[in-house]
Amino acid sequence: MIPRYSRPEMTAIWSPESKFRIWFEIEAHAGDAMADLGLIPRENAEAVWRAKDAEFDIARIDEIERETKHDVIAFLTHLAEIVGSAEARFVHQGLTSSDVLDTTLNVQLTRAADILIADMDALLAALKRRALEHKDTLRIGRSHGIHAEPTTLGLTFARFYAEMDRNRNRLEKARWEVATGAVSGAVGTFANVDPRVEEHVCEKLGLRPEPISTQVIPRDRHAMFFATLGVVASSIENVATEIRHMQRTEVLEAEEFFSAGQKGSSAMPHKRNPVLTENLTGLARLIRSAVTPALENVALWHERDISHSSVERGIAPDATIHLDFALARLTNVIDRLVVYPDRMLENMNRYRGLVMSQRVLLALTQKGVSREDAYRLVQRNAMKVWEEGRDFQTELLADADVRAALSEEEIAEKFDTAYHTAHVDTIFARVFDAPEAN
Amino acid sequence: MIPRYSRPEMTAIWSPESKFRIWFEIEAHAGDAMADLGLIPRENAEAVWRAKDAEFDIARIDEIERETKHDVIAFLTHLAEIVGSAEARFVHQGLTSSDVLDTTLNVQLTRAADILIADMDALLAALKRRALEHKDTLRIGRSHGIHAEPTTLGLTFARFYAEMDRNRNRLEKARWEVATGAVSGAVGTFANVDPRVEEHVCEKLGLRPEPISTQVIPRDRHAMFFATLGVVASSIENVATEIRHMQRTEVLEAEEFFSAGQKGSSAMPHKRNPVLTENLTGLARLIRSAVTPALENVALWHERDISHSSVERGIAPDATIHLDFALARLTNVIDRLVVYPDRMLENMNRYRGLVMSQRVLLALTQKGVSREDAYRLVQRNAMKVWEEGRDFQTELLADADVRAALSEEEIAEKFDTAYHTAHVDTIFARVFDAPEAN
Amino acid sequence: MIPRYSRPEMTAIWSPESKFRIWFEIEAHAGDAMADLGLIPRENAEAVWRAKDAEFDIARIDEIERETKHDVIAFLTHLAEIVGSAEARFVHQGLTSSDVLDTTLNVQLTRAADILIADMDALLAALKRRALEHKDTLRIGRSHGIHAEPTTLGLTFARFYAEMDRNRNRLEKARWEVATGAVSGAVGTFANVDPRVEEHVCEKLGLRPEPISTQVIPRDRHAMFFATLGVVASSIENVATEIRHMQRTEVLEAEEFFSAGQKGSSAMPHKRNPVLTENLTGLARLIRSAVTPALENVALWHERDISHSSVERGIAPDATIHLDFALARLTNVIDRLVVYPDRMLENMNRYRGLVMSQRVLLALTQKGVSREDAYRLVQRNAMKVWEEGRDFQTELLADADVRAALSEEEIAEKFDTAYHTAHVDTIFARVFDAPEAN
Amino acid sequence: MIPRYSRPEMTAIWSPESKFRIWFEIEAHAGDAMADLGLIPRENAEAVWRAKDAEFDIARIDEIERETKHDVIAFLTHLAEIVGSAEARFVHQGLTSSDVLDTTLNVQLTRAADILIADMDALLAALKRRALEHKDTLRIGRSHGIHAEPTTLGLTFARFYAEMDRNRNRLEKARWEVATGAVSGAVGTFANVDPRVEEHVCEKLGLRPEPISTQVIPRDRHAMFFATLGVVASSIENVATEIRHMQRTEVLEAEEFFSAGQKGSSAMPHKRNPVLTENLTGLARLIRSAVTPALENVALWHERDISHSSVERGIAPDATIHLDFALARLTNVIDRLVVYPDRMLENMNRYRGLVMSQRVLLALTQKGVSREDAYRLVQRNAMKVWEEGRDFQTELLADADVRAALSEEEIAEKFDTAYHTAHVDTIFARVFDAPEAN
Repeated sequence: MIPRYSRPEMTAIWSPESKFRIWFEIEAHAGDAMADLGLIPRENAEAVWRAKDAEFDIARIDEIERETKHDVIAFLTHLAEIVGSAEARFVHQGLTSSDVLDTTLNVQLTRAADILIADMDALLAALKRRALEHKDTLRIGRSHGIHAEPTTLGLTFARFYAEMDRNRNRLEKARWEVATGAVSGAVGTFANVDPRVEEHVCEKLGLRPEPISTQVIPRDRHAMFFATLGVVASSIENVATEIRHMQRTEVLEAEEFFSAGQKGSSAMPHKRNPVLTENLTGLARLIRSAVTPALENVALWHERDISHSSVERGIAPDATIHLDFALARLTNVIDRLVVYPDRMLENMNRYRGLVMSQRVLLALTQKGVSREDAYRLVQRNAMKVWEEGRDFQTELLADADVRAALSEEEIAEKFDTAYHTAHVDTIFARVFDAPEAN
Repeated sequence: MIPRYSRPEMTAIWSPESKFRIWFEIEAHAGDAMADLGLIPRENAEAVWRAKDAEFDIARIDEIERETKHDVIAFLTHLAEIVGSAEARFVHQGLTSSDVLDTTLNVQLTRAADILIADMDALLAALKRRALEHKDTLRIGRSHGIHAEPTTLGLTFARFYAEMDRNRNRLEKARWEVATGAVSGAVGTFANVDPRVEEHVCEKLGLRPEPISTQVIPRDRHAMFFATLGVVASSIENVATEIRHMQRTEVLEAEEFFSAGQKGSSAMPHKRNPVLTENLTGLARLIRSAVTPALENVALWHERDISHSSVERGIAPDATIHLDFALARLTNVIDRLVVYPDRMLENMNRYRGLVMSQRVLLALTQKGVSREDAYRLVQRNAMKVWEEGRDFQTELLADADVRAALSEEEIAEKFDTAYHTAHVDTIFARVFDAPEAN
Repeated sequence: MIPRYSRPEMTAIWSPESKFRIWFEIEAHAGDAMADLGLIPRENAEAVWRAKDAEFDIARIDEIERETKHDVIAFLTHLAEIVGSAEARFVHQGLTSSDVLDTTLNVQLTRAADILIADMDALLAALKRRALEHKDTLRIGRSHGIHAEPTTLGLTFARFYAEMDRNRNRLEKARWEVATGAVSGAVGTFANVDPRVEEHVCEKLGLRPEPISTQVIPRDRHAMFFATLGVVASSIENVATEIRHMQRTEVLEAEEFFSAGQKGSSAMPHKRNPVLTENLTGLARLIRSAVTPALENVALWHERDISHSSVERGIAPDATIHLDFALARLTNVIDRLVVYPDRMLENMNRYRGLVMSQRVLLALTQKGVSREDAYRLVQRNAMKVWEEGRDFQTELLADADVRAALSEEEIAEKFDTAYHTAHVDTIFARVFDAPEAN
Repeated sequence: MIPRYSRPEMTAIWSPESKFRIWFEIEAHAGDAMADLGLIPRENAEAVWRAKDAEFDIARIDEIERETKHDVIAFLTHLAEIVGSAEARFVHQGLTSSDVLDTTLNVQLTRAADILIADMDALLAALKRRALEHKDTLRIGRSHGIHAEPTTLGLTFARFYAEMDRNRNRLEKARWEVATGAVSGAVGTFANVDPRVEEHVCEKLGLRPEPISTQVIPRDRHAMFFATLGVVASSIENVATEIRHMQRTEVLEAEEFFSAGQKGSSAMPHKRNPVLTENLTGLARLIRSAVTPALENVALWHERDISHSSVERGIAPDATIHLDFALARLTNVIDRLVVYPDRMLENMNRYRGLVMSQRVLLALTQKGVSREDAYRLVQRNAMKVWEEGRDFQTELLADADVRAALSEEEIAEKFDTAYHTAHVDTIFARVFDAPEAN
C-alpha cells in the first residue's frame, strides 16, 4: 500500500487494531452461541466480553507470535492475559484459526466495499451534476482520435455516469460475494463446532453463513471480488484518458483544476499538466494487478493450503485502499474540472463544416443518388476542405452535381448542429431516469 | 482457438456464416423499423428479406474487403448483389459500421453464454449425482497437503457443486452485462437514426438497447464478461487440481476413466496419468489470459478507437470455445471418475488414529485441563505415533495423565468417525435444498 | 491464431507438416547416433531415412491418434507404415514422447525467433531511414500531452530505433534461452538412452543439449521467451501510440499511408483513421496475454505434468504469429508514414514563444536572479501569452524587471530553435554509431 | 510492501532517506561537472557538498511538498536551506525533475539487483550442497504425479540449481537493462544541459548514460526488469511446489525444518505443514503481479506522461523486497530441509518393481519382439502388480512368453537401480562444472 494514495477511513479497516477487534468479536460471539447451546458455561462466555473495551497490546501479540509462529494463538494468549486464563479456557473451542481469519477477511472486505460504494455514489453525483450542466455544450465527437460528428459534453459525462452506475451495481454484487463467514472447524465438517455457532457469529457480523466451507471460505468469491475491482479501475482509466486527451495542448477543451500555489513543473511555469488523471491511469494499472493473483488463489490444495494468505496480505489492503483513493481523486477532478466550451466549438469548426459530411451523404442517397455516387460527391468536396482549407458548405453549393440533388436550403439545413442534439433528452432520460437494474 | 479443444456448437457461433447472418438480421430489422417510421419505403425494407435464406458468398465478401479494406462495406456490397442495387439503397441508412459489429458481437456473446450456462447445468448435475453417491464415503480432509480430520468425498463434490452454482449465477450476470445492442450512429447521438430503430432491432435480437453508447458499446461490459470467464476457469482448475492430487500414485483415491485402447505413455504401460485434469489446468490458464486484455480494452479514446477489435477477434472465440470444451471435459471426468473408497480409508488410517488428536485435545480441555497442558499431552502421544508407528488410541489409554482426565470409554468415543459426519446432512441441505441467490 | 493477423512463413512453422517433419528428423538422427554407438543395427538407422522425402499422411496420423489417444505413438505407427514395421523397430528406442515433443517445440521457437529477429532488422532499417530523413525536422516535445520544448521528429524515430535495437538484443537472448533440446528419457536420467544421442540430435538441429532435463525441458526458459515477446509487444504499442497521437485531428503531424481505394468509414469519407496503429495497440495486448500463462507454466509437478501443453498449443503459435505480423505491419507504417513538417511548426508556435520559457528562466538565474524570482518573472509573462494570446518574446522585452537582467539580444537569442537541436548529432552518434551491447 | 515479507537491507534502498541521498548526489555531481565545464562557479559546486553528511529533514521536505505539490522542488528548497540560498542557486540548473527521479530509480533498481544476485548466490550454494549430499539418494521420478522411473534427489536439487543459475544470469541482464542514467533536460535534447554532465553523473553513480532519453528513461528497460523478476518468482514457485509435494502426508519424502517452539496448528499438534513453501507460492504470485503493469507502463504519451510513476511507487519496492525475502526464505528452506531417504525407497517400491516396466519393454524389443507384442507382454504382467499387489519380477519370471525372450539373469538385471543412476555424474558435470553462459 502506498501511503500517498491512501485515505484514513479505508486504511483503518486494514490496521492491526481493526483486525484484532474483529477476531475478538468472532470469539466472543462464538462463546455466546456455545453458552446458548449449553456447550460451555455462561460465565465463561460472559467473561470474554471483559475485553470489549480493552485495547489490545499489539507489540505483545507480536512478541508471542515470534515465539509461537502462529498469529491466532498469539492473540488468544494475549486475550487470556486480559480476560483471565481460567475464564478464557473455552475461547476458540472447536474453532480452527481459519474460522477467525477468513471470517475477519470477509468482514474487512465488506466494510471496504461499503466505502467503495459510498465513493461511487459521490462520483455519480459529480458526474450527474456536470452532465446536466453541460447537457447542451456542443463538442465534436471523435472516433480513432479523428473528428466524426458533433455530440455534447453532457453526453460524455452521462456515459461515464452510466458506466460508473454499472460499476456501482457490480460493487454491490462483489460485496455480496464475500459477505459470508465460516465457523466450521478444521476441515469444514462442524465436527467440533455446532453449525448454530456459525449462524450466530455471522448474524452478529452482518454476514451469511458460508453454505459449505473447507478449512477456508472458497476463494472463487474473492477472485470475483478483485476481478470486479479490476473492472472498476479500468473504468477509472477510461474517464482519466478522456480528460488527459481534453487537456492536451492542441485540444485544450478542459483542464484539471490548478491550485494557486501549485507548480506544474520546475522548469516550465506555463505548463498545466493533467497529473491527476495520469496518476489515475497508473493507479488503475496497479489496482488491476490484483486480479491475476486473486484468480491464481482459487485452486488451493484439498481442504486448503495457505498460499492465498500472503497474496491477500498484499492485494486486499492495496487494491481497496488505492481504489478508494482513486475514486475520491476522480470525483474531485470531475467536480472541479475547468471546461472551455469556446475551445470546443473552435475545435469542431477547425475543418470548416467537414464534420457534416455524413449528413450530406445521407441526404444525397435519400434523394435517390446511389450510395457509391453520393460517396464520391461528398468525397470530392470534402477533400477541398481538407487539403485547401475551404468551407464545405460553400463547396457543396458550388457543385452542380450536388445541387442537382439538393437545394440551397436543404444543404444549409445539413449544417444545423441542433440536428445532432435532438435526442440528447431521450438519452438523458434513459441514463438518469430509468437506470438499468439487474 | 485450438481446434483440439473446441466443440462444434460453440465454434459455429464464431463462424463467418453466423456473423454475416446476424449482420443481415440487424440490417433487415433496422429496415423494417425505418419503414414503420415512414423513413424509407416499405418495399425496400421488404426487399432486403429476400436474402433471408440466401447463403452469403464469403469468398466474394473477402474479395470486396481486400479492395475496400472495410468489412461492413464489403458485406453491404455483396448484400446489394443479392437483393438488387436499387432495392438495397436504403440498407444501413444512418447506421455506422459499429452499430452492426457491436450488436453482433453481443448477440454472439449472449449465445455463447447460453451454451456455457447449459454446460454448467450438466456439470452441476454430474457433481450433484457424485455428491449424493459419496455423501458418506469417508476420506481424510487435508490442509497444507497434510492429514487433518475426516470428511467425506460427498462433501468434496458438494463444495465443487456450490462453487459451480455460484459460477452459474455469475455467468447469468455476465450474460446480462453484454445483452445490449446499439444502433445509434457515428458517435451515439442518434443524429442519423431514430432511437426506435435501435429498440426494434434489439427486441428482435433478444437484447436491451444500450442506454448510452458512443460509436461503440462501452467495453466495461465485455471486461466484466471475460473477467467472469476467468473466475469460472479458475474454479475448473480448482476441481482439476483436487483430482490430480487424488490420482497421484501415493494417494490414489480416484482415477480419471481410462478407456480400453488408450495408452498412457509410450514407455510405461502401467501408468494411468490424470491427463484430462492436467489439460484442464492448462486450459484454465489459457482462458484466464483473456482477462487482462479485456480490462485493457475499456479505456478507448474519445467516442472509440478500434484497438479493442483485434483483441476481441482473439479472445471472444478463444475464451468461450475453450471454456465450453473445458466444462464439457470436466463434466465427463466427474461423471466417470473411478473412486477407490478402500484406499481412502487406508490413507486415513495411515498414522493410526492420529487424525483424531484434535478431538482428544478438545476433550481434555473440556475436562478442565488447561489448553497448554492438553496440547502437551496430546503432542507427546502423537509423536509416538508419528515417529514410531504406534497406535494413538493405545498410547492415550496407557498415558496416566490422559487417563486422569478421560475414561477408557471417553477415549474410545473420540475415535468414532461418525462424529465427523454428523453434520453432513445439514451441509447437503444448505447446498442442494437452499441454494444461494443474489 | 487469427488468420487476418498472420503471415505464411511464420504460420508454416506451426503447421502439422512442419511438426511431423521435425519429429521425423529427431527420430532419424537419434537412430544414427545409436547406430554409431553400436546400440542398434546400422541398416535400421538408415532405413528410417527412407521417409526423408515422404509426405506424412496427417489424416492417417489423426486417425491413429483418435484410437490410441497418443500423438507420438500415432506418428510412430504411421512412420512404421512408411519405413516398414521390421525396419522401424528400433525407432524411438529409449526415448520418451517428450524428448520428441519438447525438442520440436524448441526448434519451432528458435525458427520463430529467427523470423522475428529478421522482422526487427527490417523495422530498424525503416526507423533509421526515417530518423535520418527527419533528423532536423523541428517538432514540439510534449510531456503530459502538453507542449514542453522543441525536439525533432528524427529524435522520435531515433529513440524508437534504440528501443527496438534493445528488443532485437532481447530477442536474441530469448532465442538463446530456448535453443536447447533434450533426449534424456522418461525422467531425464538417460537410463535408456545414451547422452551422446542427445548431443548428436541437438547438434544436427542447431540446439544445445539441455544440461539437465526431467521428462521435459524446464519451462523457465519458455517463460523468459514469452516474457520477452511481451516486452517487444509493449514497445510496438509505444510506437503505435505516438503515431495515433500524431494523426489525431487537432495535431495532424503525420498520417498512416492511405491507399487510393481504401474507405476510412462507411459514413464519413474525409476521415483518415490511424487504424493500423490502433490495430497494433490491440495486437500488443493480445501478444502480452501470453506472458502470464507462460509464467504459470513454470511450476510443473515433479518431473513433469502436462498442464503446460495446452497453454503452449495456444500461445506458442499465437504470440509468434501475431508478433511477426505486428512487426511487419509496423515496419510498413513507419516506411510509408506521411509526415507534415509544416503542421509541426504550426503546432509548436501555437502559443507564441511560450515553449521557450524554460530557457528564459535559466537565463535569468544565470544573471543572478534568484530561482524563485526568476520563476515569478517568467510566469507573469507566460500567463499573458496563455490567457490573452500575446507573444512571449514581445512581453518579455516590455517587462522592465526582465530587461533589468537581460538585454534585447539576450532575449532574442532565447527564441532561436537551433539551441534545441545543438546536440542532435551527439545523440544520433550514440544511437546509430555506438549501439549498446550486452 | 508487506513488512512481514521484508528484510532491512533491501527495504533501506527504498526509504525516503536513500532516495534523497541519491537525489543529492546527482545534483552535487552535476554541479561538479558544470563547474568543470566552466558553466557555473566552482565555489557554488563545492558549496553543495556541504550537505554531504547532513541528514535531510524528511518532515520538512514533506511540508514543502504539500504546499508546492512538487517533490523535487520541495527537496531543492530544503537543500538550499542547508547549503545557503545564494550558494545553491545553480543547483539543478538545466535539469528537469525526471533527470533526478529516473536516474535515482535506476540507482535503486541496480542496488536492488545486486542484493538479489547475492541472494541468488546463497541459494545456489545451498542447492549445490544439497545436490552433492544427495547425488545418489534414490527416489522415484514422477510424471503426471505418477511413478515413472527412478532418479535421485541430487538430480532434483541439481535441476533447481541449473534453473536458478539461469535466473542469476537473467538477473544480471536485468540489472544491465536498468543501469542507465539520464541528465538530458525537459525533452531529452540536452538543450539546457551539456551531455558531459550526464556522463559525469552516470560515471559517479555506476550507470551508463542513456543513449537517447526523452524527459524520461524509456520504460521498456523497466518492463524487462520486472518481467525477469516474474520469471525468477515462477522458478521459486517451482521449487516450492516440489517441496510441498514431498511433504504431503502420503509422500513424506522431506519436511521443512520445524523449530522446537513452533506450533503447526492450534488444533492438530502432530501436523507439520509446509507453510514456508506455501508462503513462497503465494509470494511468487504477488511478485509476478508486477509484470503486467510494468508492461503497460511502456507506452507513455509523447516525451512522457507520468502514469508510470504511481505504478513504480508500488511495484519497484514491493517486487524487489518480496523477491529478496522469498529468495532468502527459500535458501533457508533448502539449507535445512529434512530429508527421508528411507521413505523415498519405500515409496519407490510401493508397486513392487513396476517402475522397471520401461526397461523390460525395451529389453524385449531388443530381443526382437515387436514393439506391440512387447507392450502387451509388459502390460499383462504389470496389471497383476497394479491390481493384485504381486511382484513384477516374479510375474515376469513366470510368464513363458517373456521367458522365451529373456533369461532369468536378464530379467533380474532389469531391476538393478544402478542402471538409472549411471549418468548422474555426467549430468552433474554438465550442471556444476560447465555452466551455461550467454
